[in-house]
Amino acid sequence: MNILVIALGGNAILKRGERGSYEEQYYNITETVSKLADIIELGYRIVITHGNGPQVGATMIRYDAAKTLVPPFPLHVAGAETQGFIGYMIQQALVNEFIKRKIDISVATVVTQVIVDRNDPAFNNPTKPIGPFYRKEELQEISRLHPDWVIIDDAGRGYRRVVPSPDPKRIVEIDVIKRLVKDDSIVIACGGGGIPVIEKEGQLIGVDAVIDKDLASERLATQLGASKMMILTDVEGVYLDYNTPHQRLLRETNLDEIKKYHAEGHFKTGSMGPKVKAIIRFLANGGSEGIIGHLEKAKENLVEGEGTHIFP
Amino acid sequence: MNILVIALGGNAILKRGERGSYEEQYYNITETVSKLADIIELGYRIVITHGNGPQVGATMIRYDAAKTLVPPFPLHVAGAETQGFIGYMIQQALVNEFIKRKIDISVATVVTQVIVDRNDPAFNNPTKPIGPFYRKEELQEISRLHPDWVIIDDAGRGYRRVVPSPDPKRIVEIDVIKRLVKDDSIVIACGGGGIPVIEKEGQLIGVDAVIDKDLASERLATQLGASKMMILTDVEGVYLDYNTPHQRLLRETNLDEIKKYHAEGHFKTGSMGPKVKAIIRFLANGGSEGIIGHLEKAKENLVEGEGTHIFP
Repeated sequence: MNILVIALGGNAILKRGERGSYEEQYYNITETVSKLADIIELGYRIVITHGNGPQVGATMIRYDAAKTLVPPFPLHVAGAETQGFIGYMIQQALVNEFIKRKIDISVATVVTQVIVDRNDPAFNNPTKPIGPFYRKEELQEISRLHPDWVIIDDAGRGYRRVVPSPDPKRIVEIDVIKRLVKDDSIVIACGGGGIPVIEKEGQLIGVDAVIDKDLASERLATQLGASKMMILTDVEGVYLDYNTPHQRLLRETNLDEIKKYHAEGHFKTGSMGPKVKAIIRFLANGGSEGIIGHLEKAKENLVEGEGTHIFP
Repeated sequence: MNILVIALGGNAILKRGERGSYEEQYYNITETVSKLADIIELGYRIVITHGNGPQVGATMIRYDAAKTLVPPFPLHVAGAETQGFIGYMIQQALVNEFIKRKIDISVATVVTQVIVDRNDPAFNNPTKPIGPFYRKEELQEISRLHPDWVIIDDAGRGYRRVVPSPDPKRIVEIDVIKRLVKDDSIVIACGGGGIPVIEKEGQLIGVDAVIDKDLASERLATQLGASKMMILTDVEGVYLDYNTPHQRLLRETNLDEIKKYHAEGHFKTGSMGPKVKAIIRFLANGGSEGIIGHLEKAKENLVEGEGTHIFP
């Protein structure tokens, strides 16, 4: 099978400067799925993953704003809600695109849990800011309501909760996703990196954490035996010496070379770092090609050599 | 295949008097899935549907409370979010129950859209109250923000939005659900009656409406070719002359008889009416048995003749 896992970046759903209305997000997604349909028409069986940063942030703001009226939910529930929301938009827009193009393929969003190690060191070092900004005078009330929250002073913009970002280990719903892909369905899975769960005495328990969506996509691609994985973002590809006068785009490279560049610190933790790390893991685990490129050139990345191509 | 569609009532997730915290809902669901696991151990392939009334209500309250901070979403999006949320809880609890019982079956929530007719008369007669109560002085602002909303005076408790409750026609994701059921997976689908969509110029469009979850479950059961459909609720079964001195429980009946009782007005629109209507449709469309009974007796309904059994 020629399975291709496509990880959509935030810009596939929400553009910079937008407030995040449903209409904005749905419009962006109709543009995105048209690019995905081009790839499906090439004969690829695609599995779609996506981020949920701004959406989960908005959900946490809603929980907070209504907390005296209805009980706020934990972060992992916000993850599940945004999987439903974003998955719904993608599947509806994709079905509509298929109707226009007379493509007869079914599409489904599978709510996805991803297992993380409860001994992951990330749990002792929460780093990922999430949800609303708080004022200093609110902090006492917040820590009374949520004694387990870690709050940081976010660069003078206010106080903000930070959560751990543990490493994804295993996709709980992998069998179901595998069956659907085998049956030629398009699956939307692992939204927002998946809902993080730990295993404790053989039971799954949701935890408040954020899994990097590219690293979760690697787990999905590897567990599915995908041949290719493509991460779509808002830059042309992987740059060396990014944002310096010497910046240059990598067109084609291999595992050893990209590992060397990664070790040399070319890729920032908050942006290209996890993408490159995900591709490194994918290739080391048997993948045959990793691609990082611009969302606008989704098809060109595959057939015209746009973007950065990394081989074993 | 011995497919059984089980429609869970609101009490499977939230008990009367509870405020709706995650902990309450997850606890109730662990109790519910233990009953479902008993049925799975009997050899049934079950497909699970569920309501979302209180959950979607809470979501609309959150949208409203945070509306000056983040854009509120339409009702159909709230439906998608609660499918993610409730589906996540059910699938996690069921996987955990399977681990305890050493059952090796995969479980997945499929985000489900349900097509309704855009010419359905319900669209001209919205009747289903949804979301927060408003005070009289808020109404002008509400109608400025949402010019398309219909607001009613809800029995002196305040003002409330009402939405249409159109008849479900077809499950968009039926192929995917069918494949998973065929492959022995447990599927959670049609949450809250499904996300209502209309077809317009061949395109699916989400609409603000609420589909009755029992009627949507009938569509699912019929489209899947299920042999049985069981609606679980908080009463023992179907009563004639309910809440009168002459009330009596129907143990076993048939299609003609139940249609007669239905026409005689024995079943209330807001409670038993749609359940009976759903079973009538299911049997008329080829189903071999419809059961309505208490959630607590899920297994006893099937094997010990508890509840009401309706045959063609």
